Formats: sequence, C-alpha cells, structure tokens
Amino acid sequence: MFDLKVYLKTKQQTVNAALKKLWDDTEPYPTPLVRAMRYSLEAGGKRLRPILCIGAAETVGGSEADVMPAACALELVHTYSLIHDDLPAMDDDDLRRGKPTCHRAFDEATAILAGDALLTTAFEILAASGRREGNDALKWLEAAHLIARAAGYSGMVQGQMMDLAAEGKEITMEELDRLHQFKTGAIIEASVKAGAILGGGSSREVDALGDYGRHIGLAFQMADDILNIEGKPESLGKPVGSDQAHQKATGPSLIGLERAKARARHLMERALEQLKIFGIRGDPLAALARYVVERNK
Amino acid sequence: MFDLKVYLKTKQQTVNAALKKLWDDTEPYPTPLVRAMRYSLEAGGKRLRPILCIGAAETVGGSEADVMPAACALELVHTYSLIHDDLPAMDDDDLRRGKPTCHRAFDEATAILAGDALLTTAFEILAASGRREGNDALKWLEAAHLIARAAGYSGMVQGQMMDLAAEGKEITMEELDRLHQFKTGAIIEASVKAGAILGGGSSREVDALGDYGRHIGLAFQMADDILNIEGKPESLGKPVGSDQAHQKATGPSLIGLERAKARARHLMERALEQLKIFGIRGDPLAALARYVVERNK
Repeated sequence: MFDLKVYLKTKQQTVNAALKKLWDDTEPYPTPLVRAMRYSLEAGGKRLRPILCIGAAETVGGSEADVMPAACALELVHTYSLIHDDLPAMDDDDLRRGKPTCHRAFDEATAILAGDALLTTAFEILAASGRREGNDALKWLEAAHLIARAAGYSGMVQGQMMDLAAEGKEITMEELDRLHQFKTGAIIEASVKAGAILGGGSSREVDALGDYGRHIGLAFQMADDILNIEGKPESLGKPVGSDQAHQKATGPSLIGLERAKARARHLMERALEQLKIFGIRGDPLAALARYVVERNK
Repeated sequence: MFDLKVYLKTKQQTVNAALKKLWDDTEPYPTPLVRAMRYSLEAGGKRLRPILCIGAAETVGGSEADVMPAACALELVHTYSLIHDDLPAMDDDDLRRGKPTCHRAFDEATAILAGDALLTTAFEILAASGRREGNDALKWLEAAHLIARAAGYSGMVQGQMMDLAAEGKEITMEELDRLHQFKTGAIIEASVKAGAILGGGSSREVDALGDYGRHIGLAFQMADDILNIEGKPESLGKPVGSDQAHQKATGPSLIGLERAKARARHLMERALEQLKIFGIRGDPLAALARYVVERNK
C-alpha cells in the first residue's frame, strides 16, 4: 500500500536537505541578503512543486537525483513569488506560514531583493545542471525554458497582475479560471512537465503529465480558496477569511462553497485519468492529486 | 578609421529592433504588464551591455546574429534592476532617462512585477536560444550560468544590498570598489564574457575579454559618480547631485574628484591592455572603453 504521509515526509526531507546545500558556499558568513532568502525558503512550505517534479520523474522511470536541481529551482521560484506577493504594494500580508513575512522580518528593500535573488538563483541552478557532465544539456534547456515561460509575463507574474486588478471587481468564473491558470496553474504544470522531461519521459508521457499538472493546478487553487473559508488558522499558519477582507473573487464566492468543492473534485478526477497509462507507477501522483484537494493546510 | 559614433548608433538600432521583436506575440493587445515592461525597456538607454556583448563576439570573430538574444537578455536584466532600484523602498527616484520611473508612470505593484517579468524573460530568451537548431546548447548554458551568477545573490543584487547598507555610512575606497564590482562590474564583465563565449572565442580570448570587462565595469561606475557631480541634467536625464543628497559614498567623495578621474583613466588603460592580442579587431572595444570613461551621459 502506498503511504502518502510517509512519501511526503521523506520527499520533504530530501528536498529540504538539497535546498540547504545550495548555500554551502555562503557559510559560515551568510550575507544579510542570503539570510533573508533562506528565512523565507526555510519557513516550512509543503514543497509541493518540488515533490510534483520528483514524482513526475519517478513516474516515467527517472530518479529523484536526476531532477533534484530542477525541484530546488521550482521551490526558489515559488518562494520568490510569495515574498513579492506579500509586499505592502501588493497583498500587504504580515504572516506567511505562521511567521512574519519577509518584509516584516527584515525590511521592504531586503524582501524585494531577496525575491529577485531567489528567482535569479533558480536559473543559475538550472543552467549549472545543464552544463554538468552526464546531463542532457538540451533537456535542461527545455526545462529552464518552460519554467521561465510559466513564471513570467505570460504565466505567474501575469497572474499576479490579474489578481491585483481583480480586487474589488466583479469577474466571471471563466475569468477567474484564467487568472488561476496564470497565477498558480502554469508553474504547477511546469513542475510536473520539467520532472517528466528530465526523468526521461516520452513525449506522450510528458503530455499526459502536463495535462495532469494543469488540472491539479486549478484544483489546488480551488482548494486554497475553500481553505481560506473553512480552514483552521492554526494549521494554515495565517488568518482565514483574508480573501473576503481583500474582496477577492474566489471559486466559493462566485459559485458557492458546495459547487466549488464539486469542481475541485472534478478537476482531481480529470487529473487522475491522465495517470492511467502509467499503471501502479502513477500511484504517488494519484495520491498527490487527492492530497491537493483534501489537504487541510 | 573606426567611428564610434556611427558604431554606437548602428548597434543601438539593431539592438532596439531585436528588443521590439521580443513582444511580437503580445501584439496587438499588450497587457498592462507588458506595457510597463516595454515602457522601461524602451525609455532610451545606451544599450551598453548589449553592445559590449556584441562587440566581444565580433572581436573573437563571431557575428552580431550569434549573440543577439544574449544581448537582449542582458538589457532586460539591466532594465529590471533599474526599475527595482528606483522603487520607493530603495532609491525612491522619480526620474530615469528623463522620464517618470516605472512606479511613477504606473504604480508600485506594477513596477515590481514588470521588473520580475523582465528578469524572467531574460532567462526564457537564453534557454530558447540554447534549444535552437544550429546553436551550441552548452555555450548558451554557460552564458546563462554566468549571467545568472553575475545578476544574483553573489553579484548585482548583493551589490544593491551593499549600496543601501552603505547609505549615510563611512566606508573605505576598498569597500566601495567591492560594492561596485558586485553592483555594476559583475554584469558588465558577464556581458563581455557571454559575447566572447557565444562568438566562439578561445578560453584565452574569453579570459582576456573578461578582464577587459571587469576593468571597464569599475571605470564605468567611477565615471557615473563623476557625472553625478559634473554632468548636465539635460544630457543625463536626471538631476545631478543625487548621490550627495542620498549621502552615498562615491569615488569622488572618498578620494576627491581629480584622483577619481585619474583612477577611471587608469582602469580604462588596464582594460585596453587586454585588447592587444586582438590587433585591429579590438578597435571597437577599445573605443568603447574610452567612451565609458569620457561619455557625458
């Protein structure tokens, strides 16, 4: 029997160990910049994107080691986006993962720069990995390319722009889906695809896992919005109800809580369909898809 | 006779044309995000980093076309850094290149995100170029790697941290050199080296041009500090004396205006020495080294 709890814990540990090793060259005297970067990076996230990347690689027969640098790069990109989203000029949040946000723990300039540096380091890692002997340069370039596209002006950054523009405005469920696809879906899809490519998947396998990723990306956001209403602040590490306070359109606010839950489950099932071609090899990603929708934090 | 004025103008035109083409896929309906990115990118910079990159490629026998995507990526990285440096939480500047800074023309959130997206797009371009048929994947990875390192936590971003930390403090000329090497030197050096690598230079040639880049990087910053005192606001596009107003330590403030000028010239001469091995092929970069020190904007 596949045990997701053990799987998540083990993967989180190996990802965290790999993330720690990134800063070996800055020890024993980290700069204030590196301290701010690590403060946010090590604040205890779920490591969902790295785990999806590794899970996809293993699903197509690759190994964790094959893709660990990409998994780390994805977490760096994710952490940078959280730091910048939390800034006073954006969502102006004081707490993240139960701790003061980067600009509260340090200052605004440091937070902006820590985000910039995390983003840059992500591509430094990807480029360095592509150059490493024994690695397939073209595959690493492909992974870097799709991560950059998913993160940039036609992906995550654009999603954050749309999110800010939507505050206090009436939007349709269709527009909200688009916003979520940009803001969270694209990078989650890229995490899975990068893992599949670097793990040596065929193009059919990469496509199937890309579809899986797109669906759980949307399911993830829907689940997030539901948790923002129903979650417990002590497990979330942040206050609930903040979406309402920000007058943010969410799945539940547009179509109601019950239909939002049904939609999250439907997206999860669409994701699961894509895993059929992998047989039992797809079990970890299947369990992850369920976790994305059923988690309580 | 080599005519720098014609050279700069021609190169600026080809770089500007290549930069414009980057957004072809966003026409005819650019998002507000892309408009903000282009607002800052097309505000009329000198295109020094792209021109150094192209100049280095041509010095080692490569062509402009070989390196144009890297040249564009470098300008995107430079523009992102200007947008973020100008933010209220950092230097809080209202004018840049004679026009309102990005956060004044748009708003703070848009400026932060436009910077983020420009940085991300730089790596998107580099990765896409490495994948292009006929291009040497490993060389593009090497270029991306050194640009990322020069831009990140042990390069430009760290330089900006040091710059902010130094405001109003007494620092030595040695510390200021270090700050400048991080903040401006590293990325200028990377511009030249990336051009030399992608242009097909030998490792001896790449090293020589790297040294050239390091010296003109420092000379450039020294010249900038001198212009901040002696320059004309109408040619600079920004008020003079802002370093003093910010209580910024500069070359002239630490060692006096005349010694600062002598130092800029000395750095330029050290840069010129590195070009000897290239014979007349080194003329454009030699003229650029002189321009860096003698320019009036």
